[in-house]
Amino acid sequence: MSSTTGSIFRLTSYGESHGPAVGAVVDGCPPRLALDVAAIQRDLDRRRPGQSRLTTQRKEADTVEILSGVHEGRTTGTPIGLIVRNADQNPGAYDHLEDVYRPSHADYTYDAKYGFRDHRGGGRSSARETIARVAGGAIARALLAEAAKIEIVAWVSSVGTIDAPEADLATITADLVDAGPTRCPDPATAAAIEDAIDAARRAGDSLGGVVTCVARNVPPGLGAPAFDRLEAALAAAVMSLPATKGFEIGSGFAGTRLRGSEHNDPYVMVAGQVRTTANRSGGVQGGISNGEPIVLRAAFKPTATIASSQQTITRAGTPVELAARGRHDPCVLPRAVPLVEAAVALVLADHWLLQRTVDVLPRHPGDL
Amino acid sequence: MSSTTGSIFRLTSYGESHGPAVGAVVDGCPPRLALDVAAIQRDLDRRRPGQSRLTTQRKEADTVEILSGVHEGRTTGTPIGLIVRNADQNPGAYDHLEDVYRPSHADYTYDAKYGFRDHRGGGRSSARETIARVAGGAIARALLAEAAKIEIVAWVSSVGTIDAPEADLATITADLVDAGPTRCPDPATAAAIEDAIDAARRAGDSLGGVVTCVARNVPPGLGAPAFDRLEAALAAAVMSLPATKGFEIGSGFAGTRLRGSEHNDPYVMVAGQVRTTANRSGGVQGGISNGEPIVLRAAFKPTATIASSQQTITRAGTPVELAARGRHDPCVLPRAVPLVEAAVALVLADHWLLQRTVDVLPRHPGDL
Amino acid sequence: MSSTTGSIFRLTSYGESHGPAVGAVVDGCPPRLALDVAAIQRDLDRRRPGQSRLTTQRKEADTVEILSGVHEGRTTGTPIGLIVRNADQNPGAYDHLEDVYRPSHADYTYDAKYGFRDHRGGGRSSARETIARVAGGAIARALLAEAAKIEIVAWVSSVGTIDAPEADLATITADLVDAGPTRCPDPATAAAIEDAIDAARRAGDSLGGVVTCVARNVPPGLGAPAFDRLEAALAAAVMSLPATKGFEIGSGFAGTRLRGSEHNDPYVMVAGQVRTTANRSGGVQGGISNGEPIVLRAAFKPTATIASSQQTITRAGTPVELAARGRHDPCVLPRAVPLVEAAVALVLADHWLLQRTVDVLPRHPGDL
Amino acid sequence: MSSTTGSIFRLTSYGESHGPAVGAVVDGCPPRLALDVAAIQRDLDRRRPGQSRLTTQRKEADTVEILSGVHEGRTTGTPIGLIVRNADQNPGAYDHLEDVYRPSHADYTYDAKYGFRDHRGGGRSSARETIARVAGGAIARALLAEAAKIEIVAWVSSVGTIDAPEADLATITADLVDAGPTRCPDPATAAAIEDAIDAARRAGDSLGGVVTCVARNVPPGLGAPAFDRLEAALAAAVMSLPATKGFEIGSGFAGTRLRGSEHNDPYVMVAGQVRTTANRSGGVQGGISNGEPIVLRAAFKPTATIASSQQTITRAGTPVELAARGRHDPCVLPRAVPLVEAAVALVLADHWLLQRTVDVLPRHPGDL
Repeated sequence: MSSTTGSIFRLTSYGESHGPAVGAVVDGCPPRLALDVAAIQRDLDRRRPGQSRLTTQRKEADTVEILSGVHEGRTTGTPIGLIVRNADQNPGAYDHLEDVYRPSHADYTYDAKYGFRDHRGGGRSSARETIARVAGGAIARALLAEAAKIEIVAWVSSVGTIDAPEADLATITADLVDAGPTRCPDPATAAAIEDAIDAARRAGDSLGGVVTCVARNVPPGLGAPAFDRLEAALAAAVMSLPATKGFEIGSGFAGTRLRGSEHNDPYVMVAGQVRTTANRSGGVQGGISNGEPIVLRAAFKPTATIASSQQTITRAGTPVELAARGRHDPCVLPRAVPLVEAAVALVLADHWLLQRTVDVLPRHPGDL
Repeated sequence: MSSTTGSIFRLTSYGESHGPAVGAVVDGCPPRLALDVAAIQRDLDRRRPGQSRLTTQRKEADTVEILSGVHEGRTTGTPIGLIVRNADQNPGAYDHLEDVYRPSHADYTYDAKYGFRDHRGGGRSSARETIARVAGGAIARALLAEAAKIEIVAWVSSVGTIDAPEADLATITADLVDAGPTRCPDPATAAAIEDAIDAARRAGDSLGGVVTCVARNVPPGLGAPAFDRLEAALAAAVMSLPATKGFEIGSGFAGTRLRGSEHNDPYVMVAGQVRTTANRSGGVQGGISNGEPIVLRAAFKPTATIASSQQTITRAGTPVELAARGRHDPCVLPRAVPLVEAAVALVLADHWLLQRTVDVLPRHPGDL
Repeated sequence: MSSTTGSIFRLTSYGESHGPAVGAVVDGCPPRLALDVAAIQRDLDRRRPGQSRLTTQRKEADTVEILSGVHEGRTTGTPIGLIVRNADQNPGAYDHLEDVYRPSHADYTYDAKYGFRDHRGGGRSSARETIARVAGGAIARALLAEAAKIEIVAWVSSVGTIDAPEADLATITADLVDAGPTRCPDPATAAAIEDAIDAARRAGDSLGGVVTCVARNVPPGLGAPAFDRLEAALAAAVMSLPATKGFEIGSGFAGTRLRGSEHNDPYVMVAGQVRTTANRSGGVQGGISNGEPIVLRAAFKPTATIASSQQTITRAGTPVELAARGRHDPCVLPRAVPLVEAAVALVLADHWLLQRTVDVLPRHPGDL
Repeated sequence: MSSTTGSIFRLTSYGESHGPAVGAVVDGCPPRLALDVAAIQRDLDRRRPGQSRLTTQRKEADTVEILSGVHEGRTTGTPIGLIVRNADQNPGAYDHLEDVYRPSHADYTYDAKYGFRDHRGGGRSSARETIARVAGGAIARALLAEAAKIEIVAWVSSVGTIDAPEADLATITADLVDAGPTRCPDPATAAAIEDAIDAARRAGDSLGGVVTCVARNVPPGLGAPAFDRLEAALAAAVMSLPATKGFEIGSGFAGTRLRGSEHNDPYVMVAGQVRTTANRSGGVQGGISNGEPIVLRAAFKPTATIASSQQTITRAGTPVELAARGRHDPCVLPRAVPLVEAAVALVLADHWLLQRTVDVLPRHPGDL
């Protein structure tokens, strides 16, 4: 469904970039979860524009209000309404775009779909819509932490042609990631990325990159064969984020170049637990989590809005030259990190709850 | 939902590798579509084991029977029941695996999820489940062809470290793809792949690879912002196929290394139609199709079942040495081609029908 | 799903009686629909408390704000966010109920379900939740009117033991219904009902009754066999309204006492249209609309909150005597009329859009 | 969704009256449930035509085959495929109806919806579709019995104008109900009903009636506020059965004539359990079960197919006289009993599993 996702832990999203507000409804969150509005705000602040000179300078406090579903600091089990008022919407800044299709934006496709041109800064395809996911994801994260000690950490692993060395999946934390404005946890790479983003901005250009994400302490058994494969749900969540062009889990595309004897994950017992020695599977086998860290990567294209002049056409089909005047990020990667974490948290919360409907009858130690 | 996918054009799948039958129910297919059982059988034959010496030698005719929803060669609008009886299930061949977790298979994760060990050849995680998708996908393909002239063609673009040259997206056809057993349309690459698969089999090893897929004549306007982004639905469909580890649309991961000025797709008018000059977007912008060919790539890991000896553990956690004795494909890529096509067809049929619920009220030439 | 209903035209509801706000998100409404906030407000005003001396005296203006999805008076095709701030929530008025289970209220069942006692006036089971449906229903009604000239009119047909004479289904209008505070269109019956409600209030007691609803100009073909039968969707929508205990379509329970030869609806041609002579089917045959007016009835129990003293128990199981002190309606029927209309409008909008995905391929004049 | 129902415990149905087979897929049934095909067959036999002289004489053994999801007598957690071959379909018997719209049948509405006239005995609107529900319902019943000791018993409480005395909800059993061919547990009423059905058949006429159903041992807490109210789900399930025209829970329409002081259900403690003294609520308050027996009633219209001559029209709109020649039931009530039980079982299984996703976090005895 277009604006609702999830089967048990469900998120409904609404709001445009330049309307009065954006918001979310989280339904299916279990009751009695301790939930502080500050926990939601913390993730929104990591997504917020203007948080550093690397991001768009649109000024939005993005203050969230909880409208329902929480009473005296705990969830009630009923839908949690969330709202963020738009403060700096400034739709007039887009008037010169009313009749122009910006390259690699959703202008033309919106027009084709809806027969309606809401030119005010991307309307619903704007990254502002992701406020709903980050807010909902923060609640999912709180549930996963309290109910299952699951931790989710994402970071920038490349920008443009600059690649960070592989992070230690077992020890990386959000504090390490958030230590600098790039959200790349390797200091040397972070410095190079910062320079590259500055240079791109000065050149009126933009950069893409890759976010890597790990989920730790995911119990074995989440997901299912066929259409509810955990990697399918994760791919859908990640690929529904703006500007994504690719998704990998575990060995990804590089794994296709290995032989089976190299790629397979042998099982071993470690401290009484079933473990694999290599985790090329990325924590998922046959669509179901195996208890290893879930590791995935998301490709984000370079920002479509650039200050350089570009050729395009008007709604009437007339060629026109276009130079961006709106506020924009020269590289979305630093702000994409909380988006990927939210996407993963929403999927895992949903599947963790779904598994509660599977493991219902007693296990028979003998014959089963 | 685990075994049902789609919101309007819906596919429900059932059946295990070594049970009596596998099958599907297709619901939401419009009435009055000409539908010949031979069209479904043709795609099943392309998926069938034993179709060449490159595939598993399990003997299955995989003959499909239509149980409902079709009357005198046309769909009736009611659910289309489909069944394929398993002929060569031979579950006894797996008895030696009853207590062993095969590396990179779903054995352990199934056990963790269901507390139930159906060791008969992978149960529901077996590739035999994909019969349902291929059969349902064939119906989706027939609808897309009749209603919108949409064509979907997939092919093997790499196996192991052997990469085919880029295909011509405008002219490639299923006939070219199916000309040889590898389903790689470039004859020189196909020959190299054939040798590599033969060598892997002799070595008791396996290979992975990449399938590329193009959908032509997709009208602009399919998909939606937020959770129904077309690339999200495509990613979920592809990543729910067994053995997938990655998904790309358009420029994919390589696109993250370009600058915005290089990556953007300028619009031009060609023969009265809005077109882009480069299609790095892969036919989708802001989650909505733009009329360009949709181009995507799927990464398939090397087959987990190999004849070589491997270390693993039993259900009790005891280390054990394992050598495969079942029948298996040394490389799933040739048989993966119809799977990817079916996944894409199911998504496009669903979104094509969904768009019928959007474009309902008259367009106002003046103000809209 | 608990707080979302519909498959294409979808309504998500949030908010408690005594929290900051109640609201709704309408997703799947087609773009380009003329939509005035006043049209939504008009139905909310008909639902509003304090509209006459027959209703609860809780003071709420129930002013709705549109947060998204509407631009310059037309829908954009994206989700329509709606919010109504609670003004007179006064949760302290319920403090004496914190440990008491009110008879025939949801207090005990909430506690059993959620392990959480939100005693502030019924929480989510309060009739304030229906604001979401009435607001969403007003949008559905606007769509049905513009796209298909469908009209929906409901009225009070009985209160307690006072039954109105049968209304003329072809001519009854909302203006006739809203002419008096009872929403019973027959003046003599309306006067008797008004007296009965006044008397019940004075006696510290409450009354139930029946709402009848007609939908005119519904085209034939809406609904489906099996689980999407139109009467099933209508029953679910109506029976999800608070205080409902029964649902009938067409001949209802009385029809079970007729013989088939009396009950059957013979077909005739009238002015070139297929019609039935009796409409005992209530506009639906085999789960699909037949073009006749859809006629249904909803039973509402007497209000559970009464001023008279009642025996009940505390959370600890101790017997206790209870007398209501909150504000309440002695009879919900007058305010239930817009609720039933909204429920019916939401179902018809959804099914009208669904039928757009069915009637896709050309009809063959000869054999089809 | 037209042919799938349920959110966790899901049933997909396929098949027409006169095609090769009807069948079902049950998805979401937990693993490790003991499931005997004989338990499914037993309920199908209670639904079967030709089981007594009171029913249609179509000869169908209705033998069910399990195609998947069950291994060595236990469910595996994967979809359960079920198929019943049609034996006595005899579509030629309907050739004389090819161009005629039978009164109060789905002939005209099918044509309006699908533009397709499958005149072979009602196609998908035939009562044969209910085989899927009865088979799926038998699995739901097995789950409810094993997991929660829930019992569901339905019976015929009236036929035409013959009403049975109220049954004892606490003690009525399926054995009592099935003691005679009418499925009315009161012997004197059963005899009168048997005579009435015989007389209706001889007169070429048909009868309707009411089925009452009780579900015992339903734990408190199933259902939810808003759209997942338990009575809404039950109403949808029951009203999606063929020939239903009404639904009541608890006091139903008669309850609207009581005052609140008469209607309210006072709470008392009985043997350490919260109970009500009257159960006018029918086991549901605020949309959530309260632990009392759930009691509901379903109205079935008189069979539309009658042997007497009737006036109707052809597809071309020409008046025509029609007399039924197919095989049919003069009264569907005896066979409707297992249908209502199945509908109720499917809803309760779904909601029982859903509640597993709610009651997840520890209950805090102090503050909650």
